[in-house]
Amino acid sequence: MPEEKRAAPPGITEIEAAALRLAPHAVMTPLLSSPNVDARLGFRLLIKAENLQRTGSFKFRGALNALLSLDGVSRKRGVVAYSSGNHAQGVAAAAQLLGVPATIVMPADAPAIKAANTKAYGAEIRFYDRYKESREAIAGRIAEESGAALIPPYDDARVIAGQGTAGLELVRQARAMGLALDAVLAPCSGGGLIAGVALAVKSLSPGTSVYSAEPVTVDDMRRSLEAGEIRANDPAARSICDCLLAPQPGDIPFAVARKLLSGGLTVSDDQARRAMALAFADYKLVLEPGGAVALAAALAMKESWRGKTIAVIASGGNVDREIFTEALARAAD
Amino acid sequence: MPEEKRAAPPGITEIEAAALRLAPHAVMTPLLSSPNVDARLGFRLLIKAENLQRTGSFKFRGALNALLSLDGVSRKRGVVAYSSGNHAQGVAAAAQLLGVPATIVMPADAPAIKAANTKAYGAEIRFYDRYKESREAIAGRIAEESGAALIPPYDDARVIAGQGTAGLELVRQARAMGLALDAVLAPCSGGGLIAGVALAVKSLSPGTSVYSAEPVTVDDMRRSLEAGEIRANDPAARSICDCLLAPQPGDIPFAVARKLLSGGLTVSDDQARRAMALAFADYKLVLEPGGAVALAAALAMKESWRGKTIAVIASGGNVDREIFTEALARAAD
Repeated sequence: MPEEKRAAPPGITEIEAAALRLAPHAVMTPLLSSPNVDARLGFRLLIKAENLQRTGSFKFRGALNALLSLDGVSRKRGVVAYSSGNHAQGVAAAAQLLGVPATIVMPADAPAIKAANTKAYGAEIRFYDRYKESREAIAGRIAEESGAALIPPYDDARVIAGQGTAGLELVRQARAMGLALDAVLAPCSGGGLIAGVALAVKSLSPGTSVYSAEPVTVDDMRRSLEAGEIRANDPAARSICDCLLAPQPGDIPFAVARKLLSGGLTVSDDQARRAMALAFADYKLVLEPGGAVALAAALAMKESWRGKTIAVIASGGNVDREIFTEALARAAD
Repeated sequence: MPEEKRAAPPGITEIEAAALRLAPHAVMTPLLSSPNVDARLGFRLLIKAENLQRTGSFKFRGALNALLSLDGVSRKRGVVAYSSGNHAQGVAAAAQLLGVPATIVMPADAPAIKAANTKAYGAEIRFYDRYKESREAIAGRIAEESGAALIPPYDDARVIAGQGTAGLELVRQARAMGLALDAVLAPCSGGGLIAGVALAVKSLSPGTSVYSAEPVTVDDMRRSLEAGEIRANDPAARSICDCLLAPQPGDIPFAVARKLLSGGLTVSDDQARRAMALAFADYKLVLEPGGAVALAAALAMKESWRGKTIAVIASGGNVDREIFTEALARAAD
């Protein structure tokens, strides 16, 4: 039987517990700064480099926290997850680490690097058509037939608590640098990362504003926040940010976001590309387009941040060579 | 008057002192691993990501340690340095941090990104012809005329102690991961990094072997180690590794290397490019060619490392877009 969905958001206690649980396995990713960039921008920019996390994205945190919460019987039955690629790799790597069989439901047009890595972590992949089939239905069927536990990508308290550990680290690293954070920005798709980060940041540093960042074509969180209720994306909407294409915010993430976020920011694909180019040139980081949207949003708002200290989460770096080099070339034009 | 050259190598006490001095300013760069890569290679590979250091290379460590050792009068007179680019940025950034005027003697064909950043850190640049003029002579003249202190790129105990802090961190980070290091590899040009790292590693972990890595066309350290005395490079030798073109090992670095190194490894430009591509795809790191030679050497020796734990220092990431994307494309062929 699949694990029942955890319907209440985690508290700071659950995030702290997740941090302890993850410590032996997850990378304490650095919080990077560049005085040259800061001088150019007129504000202090901190980048939490989650692209350096195991599997190349923050998703490893939530996946491992969820898997560590399974009992021995559930672990033997295995896990199933649906994902455009980063959650897939996170679950596959966490499952391999714990010796748990994993099946991943992935869109057929996921970046080659994400599918290849998921397979390399020993998971079985079931491809589907992103625009015609329901990944939730396919994963649900597999869970029912095999008894595997479903590890949801974001609408799950264990997953959100795991992602929140990135926010916990960020606040503590900034403090160790003697810095008070005016705002924290994180990319948003289903909302697991932004919810976990908002919970951690607002608990440790209530005066810090937290914003979600999304591609302007799939701005479901921004519209949901403005409407006060969940709004879905146009299923026909496209973006270069392949990791940010969830149909709408998850229930738990949205409940958290509505309470804690100061707003939802959006960026164009070209702004994401320019942020990738900045991360390359000034921080020596490889970011995927979706992993760069919080950075892009911070750059776009530079007039508002003058003199402030702004941290962004660079959430992932799983990008094929062609997309990366094209982004650098277009940003240089 | 220029600072007198520090002729004896630093001890572990000086490296520990440098680490304390640098702590508020330098990045504690992560020691990264990828279980997928390890499975492919058959050994455990750890990458110390010094490309994420301030200024994009380890050089900031040695430069800042040297500048912090200057008294108030010397700081007012300023500093002068010669460098193909990474030491230039390290000295310029350290000088800016401490409010010290800096003049940098740079080859006219240094990568654009390195010259631009050096200027952005507020330093004055004096360009010279790498193949016709003596950078030592030009810098010496500036030091004599202005009273500025010369900050040598590698043949200096303060600089070597600063670079050694990367080795100190590396050993401690590996221990925190529960790992004993079989070998540590670091890129080598004049030898400041490899000397500092060898001193730190051999002091904390005497059983660990330390190797230098160089481009095969400028393999002065390997030939010097084999000859038992310093050998220079052919002045006509070329390599894509623009940061590794020092004419020969420095006196202090060579004395240290002769005593502590297990050997000198060499790689081709294409091997460096393939290492850059691996760092991009599997570690999300932007490396410059010279910053990737220790990684390249580790990859080339994979048969010898079977089952072992090998750490490499990825020493820098200051690479122009064209060189980087060309390296990824050629490695993919």
